[in-house]
Amino acid sequence: MRMITFLSDFGYDDVFVGLCHAVIAAIAPDVPVIDLTHAIPPQDVLRGALALADSVSSTPGAVHLAVVDPGVGSRRRGVVVVTEAGTLVGPDNGLLLPAVHELGGINAVFELREPRYRRERVARTFHGRDVFAPAAAHLARGAQPETFGPRIRPETLVEVPVPVARVTRGLVAAQVRAIDRFGNIQLPVRVADLERAELAAQATIELVTPVRRLEVPRVATFSELEPGAIGLLEDAFGWIAISVNRGSAAAVLSLSVFDDVRLALPRAP
Amino acid sequence: MRMITFLSDFGYDDVFVGLCHAVIAAIAPDVPVIDLTHAIPPQDVLRGALALADSVSSTPGAVHLAVVDPGVGSRRRGVVVVTEAGTLVGPDNGLLLPAVHELGGINAVFELREPRYRRERVARTFHGRDVFAPAAAHLARGAQPETFGPRIRPETLVEVPVPVARVTRGLVAAQVRAIDRFGNIQLPVRVADLERAELAAQATIELVTPVRRLEVPRVATFSELEPGAIGLLEDAFGWIAISVNRGSAAAVLSLSVFDDVRLALPRAP
Amino acid sequence: MRMITFLSDFGYDDVFVGLCHAVIAAIAPDVPVIDLTHAIPPQDVLRGALALADSVSSTPGAVHLAVVDPGVGSRRRGVVVVTEAGTLVGPDNGLLLPAVHELGGINAVFELREPRYRRERVARTFHGRDVFAPAAAHLARGAQPETFGPRIRPETLVEVPVPVARVTRGLVAAQVRAIDRFGNIQLPVRVADLERAELAAQATIELVTPVRRLEVPRVATFSELEPGAIGLLEDAFGWIAISVNRGSAAAVLSLSVFDDVRLALPRAP
Repeated sequence: MRMITFLSDFGYDDVFVGLCHAVIAAIAPDVPVIDLTHAIPPQDVLRGALALADSVSSTPGAVHLAVVDPGVGSRRRGVVVVTEAGTLVGPDNGLLLPAVHELGGINAVFELREPRYRRERVARTFHGRDVFAPAAAHLARGAQPETFGPRIRPETLVEVPVPVARVTRGLVAAQVRAIDRFGNIQLPVRVADLERAELAAQATIELVTPVRRLEVPRVATFSELEPGAIGLLEDAFGWIAISVNRGSAAAVLSLSVFDDVRLALPRAP
Repeated sequence: MRMITFLSDFGYDDVFVGLCHAVIAAIAPDVPVIDLTHAIPPQDVLRGALALADSVSSTPGAVHLAVVDPGVGSRRRGVVVVTEAGTLVGPDNGLLLPAVHELGGINAVFELREPRYRRERVARTFHGRDVFAPAAAHLARGAQPETFGPRIRPETLVEVPVPVARVTRGLVAAQVRAIDRFGNIQLPVRVADLERAELAAQATIELVTPVRRLEVPRVATFSELEPGAIGLLEDAFGWIAISVNRGSAAAVLSLSVFDDVRLALPRAP
Repeated sequence: MRMITFLSDFGYDDVFVGLCHAVIAAIAPDVPVIDLTHAIPPQDVLRGALALADSVSSTPGAVHLAVVDPGVGSRRRGVVVVTEAGTLVGPDNGLLLPAVHELGGINAVFELREPRYRRERVARTFHGRDVFAPAAAHLARGAQPETFGPRIRPETLVEVPVPVARVTRGLVAAQVRAIDRFGNIQLPVRVADLERAELAAQATIELVTPVRRLEVPRVATFSELEPGAIGLLEDAFGWIAISVNRGSAAAVLSLSVFDDVRLALPRAP
């Protein structure tokens, strides 16, 4: 018996999340269900995909139920993706793939077709309750992924474009990966990338945005910065982030997801 | 041992919901509790009643704890309502009745009076924690409803007016039942009602609001509509809803709960 | 095995709360975790401290995990506080102390240092997931507090100033303790304080704010007040509160946390 994690854009105002829990509890009453978040902005597949990717390593072996599904009721497929370190259930719209990558890549993918793993009546607008939640519950109870439907070739899965970074000597060119509600600007850059770029030892790094160029200190935590000051730190998920102590870096720098920034050696004075 | 579902207007900002969970866990630690939602607008008994009614069929046999209770501390009664398919606990203010109807009607009703099923000290302003949550926990553990207090005659229960529909040949006249946060306008109309009105086979239906008259297509899902276009679909709860793809039907049509709309045969061109 | 309660300022938009739950479930899968609230305003240690204090008596013997932690990653200590009636885990910034007081005072305090009770890799900005949640899980499973790290002298714990009241005959002078989202103004005053001040038997009490003086009735519940009228009642946590039926007392009276108010005998007519 395995744990289920659950992430969606259903919000907290309606009974959608509760009904999915009810469906899971009816099938798998003893399975713990961890709500990651249900506040992914409506239909924001990329945001959901990255939040899921940042979470899956905390629960090795779990079944990950994820539903951000603008195409519900259309011909998009529902899938079970099997990896070495966990199993994922959700729509085939790119939502699961960054997490799959974190979990070591695809072992096998199956389409969700088997009627006995769905609710008897499937609403065209709520596959979360009627298709994905029951599938996750059956998987957590031990149903074999290959019994859910036909095998899918991994290369046919739909991908969602994700922000990327390019590392060269003395330079990391990155697209903004995510902005959290505090305005921290997360980059798809690890400490290892700074090392490869030979920037890791720098106390100060040159930050170039589309409209500004400034030198910012590397810090370990917000409290090393003066209120209002900008710094670079490693965030709780291991990403390099641009942060402002008690302020919003995204507002100060006018940056959005996919905007280009560069991290470089500071110029000689 | 039975599952508990829990719906309220307590919101998520304060510890109200958590304290109810704590009380339940102390009495019935092994009972699963499914939070339906706690974001019912404060004191909106009708909204709570309809959200509960839309949810109860997902958890057959459960104990349903519902608290939207503007009259807390006054002389309004607390009740246990027994139905064939589940047991409900909450204030006698109409909140439970639409759900009771979904569960097949009343078998018996008892007033919540028995001190051993309450917390020792009952705050006048928080019966959720001190009266209703412990009652639900004891019921889930197997306490018999008739031991909670005197039997109540069902016809003395307080009712809340709910939006209704009238079906005649070629016409469904309905009051708006609910509007969700996406602006979808839910009508108290089933596909079966459209069939009785001989409207079910129409690809297009005439929609008449207090100020507008327009022809709208029947669709199965949002994605069949152009962005901004209005359509009629069956929602996830089996109700006919007026929806706008990527927009708010309630805003476009300026409709509110209880407003009158009519669905009719389109006029010959 | 013990219950865990969990309170934080992590909000519901991100996966922070979910990841803490995942960490707990991995260590202590059978321990029930009660979410008190995660909507404490960011970094508002006082608000978190008072919400926690109001909650702990509902779950005797529990482990209380609380994280409002502006100093995360700095040199502030993490602590386990043992009381007669429960054990608390969190940062040493004053957050835990009002709850400790409710639970009967300190038996012993230990610093969180032991590596085997932390996650292998501790992020500088997320001790909730990496230090406090695992500590709470191990405590709930029975780990002994003295094995977490060196004993701390209670008088070295950091305190947060809390609103207070002074009781004399005929007068209670109090600072506003908290304002909830309905605008109810909670005072650090019990019914017993009114009794000591010989105000408890008064049907009407004189309320003096920095800018107003008015006579307000004592009531047992909101519904005794006309809509818009101001009254004094005992709230669900046993505190005296200034409330407006269907309105915001805080807005009507322009009062904030720590503002001074006085409750006195009404003057003879």
